[in-house]
Amino acid sequence: MSISGRKPPHPSRRGFLATAGSLVAAGGIGLTAEAATTPAPDKKRAGTPAAEPFWGARQSGILTPAQSHTYFAAFDLTTTKREDVVKLLQRWTEAAARLTRGEPAEPIPADQSVPAGDSADGLGLGPARLTLTFGFGAGLFTKDGQDRYGLAAHRPEALVDLPRFNGDQLVPARTGGDLSVQACADDPQVAFHAVRQLSAMAYDIAEMRWVQTGFSSQPPGEKTPRNLMGFKDGTRQPDQIDKVVWVGPEGPAWMQGGSYMVVRRVRISLEHWDRMNVDFQEKTIGRHKYSGAPLGKKKEFDEVDLDATDAEGNPVMPENSHVRLSHSSSNDGAEIYRRGYSYNDGVAFTAERWPPWKQGMLYDAGLLFVCYQRDPRTGFIKIFGNSSKFDMLNQFATHVGSGLFACPPGARPGGYIGQSLFEA
Amino acid sequence: MSISGRKPPHPSRRGFLATAGSLVAAGGIGLTAEAATTPAPDKKRAGTPAAEPFWGARQSGILTPAQSHTYFAAFDLTTTKREDVVKLLQRWTEAAARLTRGEPAEPIPADQSVPAGDSADGLGLGPARLTLTFGFGAGLFTKDGQDRYGLAAHRPEALVDLPRFNGDQLVPARTGGDLSVQACADDPQVAFHAVRQLSAMAYDIAEMRWVQTGFSSQPPGEKTPRNLMGFKDGTRQPDQIDKVVWVGPEGPAWMQGGSYMVVRRVRISLEHWDRMNVDFQEKTIGRHKYSGAPLGKKKEFDEVDLDATDAEGNPVMPENSHVRLSHSSSNDGAEIYRRGYSYNDGVAFTAERWPPWKQGMLYDAGLLFVCYQRDPRTGFIKIFGNSSKFDMLNQFATHVGSGLFACPPGARPGGYIGQSLFEA
Repeated sequence: MSISGRKPPHPSRRGFLATAGSLVAAGGIGLTAEAATTPAPDKKRAGTPAAEPFWGARQSGILTPAQSHTYFAAFDLTTTKREDVVKLLQRWTEAAARLTRGEPAEPIPADQSVPAGDSADGLGLGPARLTLTFGFGAGLFTKDGQDRYGLAAHRPEALVDLPRFNGDQLVPARTGGDLSVQACADDPQVAFHAVRQLSAMAYDIAEMRWVQTGFSSQPPGEKTPRNLMGFKDGTRQPDQIDKVVWVGPEGPAWMQGGSYMVVRRVRISLEHWDRMNVDFQEKTIGRHKYSGAPLGKKKEFDEVDLDATDAEGNPVMPENSHVRLSHSSSNDGAEIYRRGYSYNDGVAFTAERWPPWKQGMLYDAGLLFVCYQRDPRTGFIKIFGNSSKFDMLNQFATHVGSGLFACPPGARPGGYIGQSLFEA
Repeated sequence: MSISGRKPPHPSRRGFLATAGSLVAAGGIGLTAEAATTPAPDKKRAGTPAAEPFWGARQSGILTPAQSHTYFAAFDLTTTKREDVVKLLQRWTEAAARLTRGEPAEPIPADQSVPAGDSADGLGLGPARLTLTFGFGAGLFTKDGQDRYGLAAHRPEALVDLPRFNGDQLVPARTGGDLSVQACADDPQVAFHAVRQLSAMAYDIAEMRWVQTGFSSQPPGEKTPRNLMGFKDGTRQPDQIDKVVWVGPEGPAWMQGGSYMVVRRVRISLEHWDRMNVDFQEKTIGRHKYSGAPLGKKKEFDEVDLDATDAEGNPVMPENSHVRLSHSSSNDGAEIYRRGYSYNDGVAFTAERWPPWKQGMLYDAGLLFVCYQRDPRTGFIKIFGNSSKFDMLNQFATHVGSGLFACPPGARPGGYIGQSLFEA
């Protein structure tokens, strides 16, 4: 038997079946239009559609209600040719439209003597509310002083190099990237499957730099999931989300309707945290643990009151609490839209940073922090520049990975993600 | 504010609320009896209960229909005292009974000036069909020639040291362990939450040695999930499962009604595999990729025919195919019950093992192979001893982690997992 396997199958389309009808005739694989209405296997929110739209003025996966799983990937471009980058974005766009409908990245080939354009591990799982969100890192515009693709003049001012924040322990192998893809879905296999097909299409053009899986478990009947610290996370989001998230006329024309994504891999010392008294945990966060209410309030969605004082005149919301330091009124009105996930990469050998300074296998788990904003300088950088210095939470959280990506507007059928940039 | 955090809260129970009623009165946390009937957030099989039974003659999580997520953990015992091991197993049993009902590992304390006995990240998520399955490694009986707990005489003959198989690339940090806990649930946060509470209870008695997360996505309306190679995996299971799985009178009395679990972390070269022709993939596995039928047959559940030949007299099922080599009739009738998961640990820097021998970030993903049998010598060791030498699949699969654990029978209320051994 022959092994072709020296080069990937893309973009050859020899031998592909042309119609949905013949696919069904070939054995009822069930990858056709009806797949878009197949219920996702673990769809968690009643009433949400199984397929999220891909085409549109804005990319999905940003304001889409958060799915239960994610697979984030950052790529380094290895090609020297601008047309390769365009070709890749065109392939990715076409494949993303298919994948988000629950179809394979490329139709299943009738000729089995060639590699398939899809690895088939997503078959039958349906769209599972898959979204694919693409972003551009600074390296797309300039890298090591080189303008590799003639795009340097179009780098937005807002796409800064992130400053070094207090306490940063960034690992290069989990930081940066020229392109980003975030798959979110209500099934982990669907999310990984999608990125795997896109990565295969990048052969000889780009390669993976770092990836991160994540999950978020939504309690039935509640609005806010709990993070691994056991606190409700995401209760408070901006009132005027559109104004906070989407780039407007202040940005370059090609980024209008886009957004800037900050991603941080935040390892949390769960063993340390679990040994803290509950009232200390609550003062660290600034919320009651079980109800989710702001300190001094009763219900999760009660308004935060930063001015309240107790009988002795001390602030009810501690000066160094996470809620106070990240609140817009502590940051000249700065706001971000958070869309984070928990991550769980098992255990790793670690030297404890607190008494009794044991060495051993500790959780490599925590938060895949993701936020969107129209300008990171007045969003994440402003807020985290403040809280990275003073937040009591920093005793338990270590930022080990990081990225900033300009997510361009969405695409219309026939177009591709990033077209506004390459035609600017 | 005070930090207690020098010692874990277990097993102190000062300040715990005594009744479910007072818990509800304290703020409607909702952790009480009704939690057992809360629907799991991503329960995937219609008609299955949200809570799986914990108490019983046999441990759950072995023949329980597979849940969508797992968190496997192997522990090293650090204590020198037999009574500590008993105490730990008693704590684990009591906590497992609570966790599998969707309750916290220990009741939420009314006094918030102490650490809680539960990290609270499972609140509201319900049982999610959680099972917790416990096993004993060889190190519980003897370690480095020491009979640490007076159990050496009770080590079953079947609890062998696994031989070195052809191609084994076992990493010590992912191999072995004195105790094992496998959490399976229809929610990844529920599975991790459970093991995290058990691990905290092991403070000063045992510590984590290695862990592995996994998932298995069940297509709606189909019986068999696909693995990351894109093939249906698990179609064929033994006809007489009880006879294959449960230890009978041939074993020591304390293991009767138990089973032996083999776990293998099998990294799969997905990039390599994806570049193979589909017909080569099918000859490697011995099944048709899309239908799941054995080679030469039409439907997934058609019987495997190892004797069929094609027009030229060659076997339809290739001599080195996975299905042929792992079939009971190729192994003197040996059978195992497989209960595996896919795993996905992102990417890692790897030197490719095939042309063009690139170096780069490759998937650290594959199969968390788990199987159960009444005797591993006539089960996994027999079958894999054969297929590890000849299976074409070995070109793509590398075993990097391994464990063999004796899973004792289940426990009755008032008893504990492993009681039959410690009272033997």
